[in-house]
Amino acid sequence: MFTGLSAFPLTPTDETGIDERAFRKLVERLAAAGVDSIGALGSTGGYAYLTREQRSRAARIAVDAAGGIPVMIGIGALRTSDVLALAEDAQNAGASAVLLAPVSYQQLTDDEVFGLYEDVTAQLSVPLCVYDNPGTTHFHFSDELHGRIAALPNVGAVKIPGIPADRAATRIAALRSQLPDGVALGVSGDQLAAGGLNAGADLWFSVIGGLLPEECLAITRAAAQGDAARAVELSERMEPLWELFGRCGSLRVTSAAAEHLGLVGTPNLPRPLRGLPAEARREVAAALDALGVRA
Amino acid sequence: MFTGLSAFPLTPTDETGIDERAFRKLVERLAAAGVDSIGALGSTGGYAYLTREQRSRAARIAVDAAGGIPVMIGIGALRTSDVLALAEDAQNAGASAVLLAPVSYQQLTDDEVFGLYEDVTAQLSVPLCVYDNPGTTHFHFSDELHGRIAALPNVGAVKIPGIPADRAATRIAALRSQLPDGVALGVSGDQLAAGGLNAGADLWFSVIGGLLPEECLAITRAAAQGDAARAVELSERMEPLWELFGRCGSLRVTSAAAEHLGLVGTPNLPRPLRGLPAEARREVAAALDALGVRA
Repeated sequence: MFTGLSAFPLTPTDETGIDERAFRKLVERLAAAGVDSIGALGSTGGYAYLTREQRSRAARIAVDAAGGIPVMIGIGALRTSDVLALAEDAQNAGASAVLLAPVSYQQLTDDEVFGLYEDVTAQLSVPLCVYDNPGTTHFHFSDELHGRIAALPNVGAVKIPGIPADRAATRIAALRSQLPDGVALGVSGDQLAAGGLNAGADLWFSVIGGLLPEECLAITRAAAQGDAARAVELSERMEPLWELFGRCGSLRVTSAAAEHLGLVGTPNLPRPLRGLPAEARREVAAALDALGVRA
Repeated sequence: MFTGLSAFPLTPTDETGIDERAFRKLVERLAAAGVDSIGALGSTGGYAYLTREQRSRAARIAVDAAGGIPVMIGIGALRTSDVLALAEDAQNAGASAVLLAPVSYQQLTDDEVFGLYEDVTAQLSVPLCVYDNPGTTHFHFSDELHGRIAALPNVGAVKIPGIPADRAATRIAALRSQLPDGVALGVSGDQLAAGGLNAGADLWFSVIGGLLPEECLAITRAAAQGDAARAVELSERMEPLWELFGRCGSLRVTSAAAEHLGLVGTPNLPRPLRGLPAEARREVAAALDALGVRA
């Protein structure tokens, strides 16, 4: 399942709970578009803000709505005991894989992070994707640590932050040399994804792919067919969105875009998170209009 | 209550739960030593790793064991709705104040952090201490934002990170100029606390004060009596501990120190956190021995 486009939908949530109907529809859209896999309850899916019960229900909805397309479920939490419980729930919900970031409050040591993955992978019956996201976890993996963790049983993939195109090939080759054969290497950071795919990443874990799957599939397919220039050109068309991602954060921009497209209500982020201010929303709407994306 | 020494005890926790007996004893030791207040369920108290139920029980134990010394309870959580529930629990437990850090997964904006404090302070009947701890929250307060938040109803204090002695007076004066009269300003960062108190901070929020209250009270009292040199001298005697704090983290060092003193069992930190390796434990023991602290 760790190939092509892995699309990460929002989990529309307000102070009363998850909008399950809207969430189901978001996942159904991804399945209809033919994404390669769905990453539910990732950072874009707000996993960190939801209760165990909410996450279990959302996981079941995602698997059901995906109609056979493999679903990866985020199981991150501050405590190992909670991660183990969430892993069990995800597997019971029918997840094809789980996604785990080393969520932290106290800064974690390398040995603590290794211990977390050791404790969790020992209990799994589906592959785990190591989620390297220093922007939210503030933990920085060394390549050596990636290699140690990827050698644990049941590790299927590593999800790394975006890499500028001019360094992507070197970076991917260096990290891949630390990973066992068969462990996939995927890139995040939507604005840099075309470069990562062109440089040989196995897949793209995509935030905006959870909302605009056709546009992101076109980039992914061009790269897979060896048409690097086409992948870059298609990504450059999305530049107004990338600029907004950099300025306002990919979650808030994607939330506003989903609102603009009529797919979610307002608010759809759990407090203390807030939606974008009006001016930024107008820019999001203009970026979608320029792409020809209609509600 | 925002004066002198506010001592932050550990909440000894393993995979089976909180060691309530050991926690009660830690709080009773602080009360017997005569600390000015107790900060239960702070970062040192592992609040972020505990369930609502565990936090509610621990808050009740702390208030009971404190024997009339005011207790501040940490109410931080990722979601505003959880913070509000924790604030209610803390007040029902008899807290004299609550402590709130802008815990984050997605990086928060200034307006989101202001909104969090606005939502929470509106519901309080005890004072709130704003907990500025970029080491765990990765949120950086501007002085202007501190001023806006401190002007909200029920804000009683601001807890800031440590400041090097040569900049402490300037820093404290600058921030104090933004705070309304009556809002106390306290310092953290044990290794820098003597300098902060000598520079006019109202109180010291102390990690090691939760384990070694006499030593920390001596520093605090010297500074309060205007004997700055004595405060510095007493702090310098603790230098081996400060060095270990910098290298291994104050939580893990304090955990190992409490083990060495026979006050908590092993392990006493919730996974994925782990205790110190054997060599660092020996250094902690030697630092305590050099201070003349006996089990």
